[in-house]
Amino acid sequence: MALHIEKIAKSRISEVDFNNLQFGHEFTDHMFECDFEDGEWQNPVIKPYQPILFDPSAKVFHYGQAVFEGMKAYKDDDDKIWLFRPEQNQERINISAERLDMPSFPKDLFFEGLTTLLKIDSEWIQKGEGNSLYIRPFIIATEHGISASASNRYKFMIICSPVQAYYAGEVRVVIADKYSRSANGGVGYAKAAGNYAGSFYPARLAREKGFQQVVWTDSCTHEYLEEAGVMNVFFRINNTLLTAPTSDRILDGITRKSIIQFLESEGIDIEVRPIKVTEIVEAARKGELLEMFGAGTAAVVSPILGFSHQGENFELPKVENSYASFIKKSITAIQQNKAEDKFGWRYEVK
Amino acid sequence: MALHIEKIAKSRISEVDFNNLQFGHEFTDHMFECDFEDGEWQNPVIKPYQPILFDPSAKVFHYGQAVFEGMKAYKDDDDKIWLFRPEQNQERINISAERLDMPSFPKDLFFEGLTTLLKIDSEWIQKGEGNSLYIRPFIIATEHGISASASNRYKFMIICSPVQAYYAGEVRVVIADKYSRSANGGVGYAKAAGNYAGSFYPARLAREKGFQQVVWTDSCTHEYLEEAGVMNVFFRINNTLLTAPTSDRILDGITRKSIIQFLESEGIDIEVRPIKVTEIVEAARKGELLEMFGAGTAAVVSPILGFSHQGENFELPKVENSYASFIKKSITAIQQNKAEDKFGWRYEVK
Repeated sequence: MALHIEKIAKSRISEVDFNNLQFGHEFTDHMFECDFEDGEWQNPVIKPYQPILFDPSAKVFHYGQAVFEGMKAYKDDDDKIWLFRPEQNQERINISAERLDMPSFPKDLFFEGLTTLLKIDSEWIQKGEGNSLYIRPFIIATEHGISASASNRYKFMIICSPVQAYYAGEVRVVIADKYSRSANGGVGYAKAAGNYAGSFYPARLAREKGFQQVVWTDSCTHEYLEEAGVMNVFFRINNTLLTAPTSDRILDGITRKSIIQFLESEGIDIEVRPIKVTEIVEAARKGELLEMFGAGTAAVVSPILGFSHQGENFELPKVENSYASFIKKSITAIQQNKAEDKFGWRYEVK
Repeated sequence: MALHIEKIAKSRISEVDFNNLQFGHEFTDHMFECDFEDGEWQNPVIKPYQPILFDPSAKVFHYGQAVFEGMKAYKDDDDKIWLFRPEQNQERINISAERLDMPSFPKDLFFEGLTTLLKIDSEWIQKGEGNSLYIRPFIIATEHGISASASNRYKFMIICSPVQAYYAGEVRVVIADKYSRSANGGVGYAKAAGNYAGSFYPARLAREKGFQQVVWTDSCTHEYLEEAGVMNVFFRINNTLLTAPTSDRILDGITRKSIIQFLESEGIDIEVRPIKVTEIVEAARKGELLEMFGAGTAAVVSPILGFSHQGENFELPKVENSYASFIKKSITAIQQNKAEDKFGWRYEVK
């Protein structure tokens, strides 16, 4: 199946101020698109980034069949382009798709579309500290008709957005005791569009109380800590890091699993086990909760300065040489080809 | 705010075979559209049904902010057009929207758009047994940009599809003991697009075992019965009907609540209370489980002939003068202006 390429007449890159980028707002000149029809993926094409015509009855608008991935490409000082564990994203989008009864997208076509697109739009990947190209592969249901059943037609796309270092500002969180992100036997482990829509209202309520995000707990008891906002979450008690095991409720984050592997290699204590809310609250009271941070593709590591639990607020101490900054620095150095890649995580686009 | 109307040059109605309609597949000549921008709903318009341009980064594709309603319009022998409790749909779409952090849509504009659209496309509402016009109001997030936050722009639309009597074939169900539809504190009570996407895969697994749908149970214990497929569910043990109370996991179905009110007025025993799976299984073993049926807008009442629970199959008896057929006949007679409307449920479009 030949990849068709249709290039733009004139790049929009000169219109973009790379020093003042809003996250995920500007897109590169081209996009990758491939349609699922008659039971197979067909007509892969790279073409100018542009709006697409959708019928108002397209199933994605009514029944939420939509899954996505988030990745980043970096350019090193020698103009080489690097991805971070892209095979993990390729596998996960198909795990997500299966749970939403959508067809899997072939690995070879994923990589051909992705790397060809990155090479065509390589000027959009800026060198320099914190700069990268955020890559968004996604699959949406395009069949017309509003019967409540899985679509027979889909569109796989990759769009790319140049981004600077992600800084969310000071982040304090509310530990959820009413709202939930996902159910046992639900779709929480998938990067499904609907998971995000359901998180915005609880996050708004948190913001109205002066907090920036929600740390989700299990929906049955609210006794166990699960994810932070749209990231996995780590807690540091004394010199031990804790993070919850993945489950059908929790996203199998690529940054999360990379951090775990990195910490193990560094000899830092990391425990992957169910974490009780009460354990964290007690550690905070005793001054033993030294750090909390989110882990995800956009920010890599995002420090959390404090939390609220059932109306009581806790502020974390300021820690010198924090694990969060050590991890972020170490992982991003690997991502950007500034450190040895002893785990084999880097993937050169060439 | 004036409703702008742009009519088609020539109706497509002559191309439609009203005796061979696929549910939700054909649409009427016009659609209603209204955009939320700069903090308010604006530019309401009725225009020819047509595809719409969407940016690939529109938030509905990535974060699943999409809610909808399902309604039906009927035409009686005097060519009068009737809706069934439309104010309930109008209220519920805003309840759904709030949970997904979307703006509510004004009641007056909802009714103006809806009734004007129905009058313009009134030829598409066919008289005769089982015929109706299925109406789909929905709201989707249209802002460009892939930051994971609620959209600042939305589109409210109404599209309409002529339908015949809904017949799902013989329906037998699997009682869920692994997969779940919704969590405590989640979005199960909302008509959110993502709820449907999450249900398709478990339904596929059920079909592969020879069953047509899933009856959902609570996600924490799988001990309590909740909904059937995309409908509420009723059980008849001897001469008593049972249905689960609504909660943050269960849709507050308009057909469901109408049936409860109707049964109470008829003096038929109806209990709205948590229903244990074991209670239904035991009743089935004793021959006391006489009926199961789903309740929803599309089918009104959809009989269930049997169920599977943890690999054991149960077949329900054939009941003469079933409650299901009595309820369906009675409710549809009210909907179609063939019976007295003692509850004040009908709404004439004029």
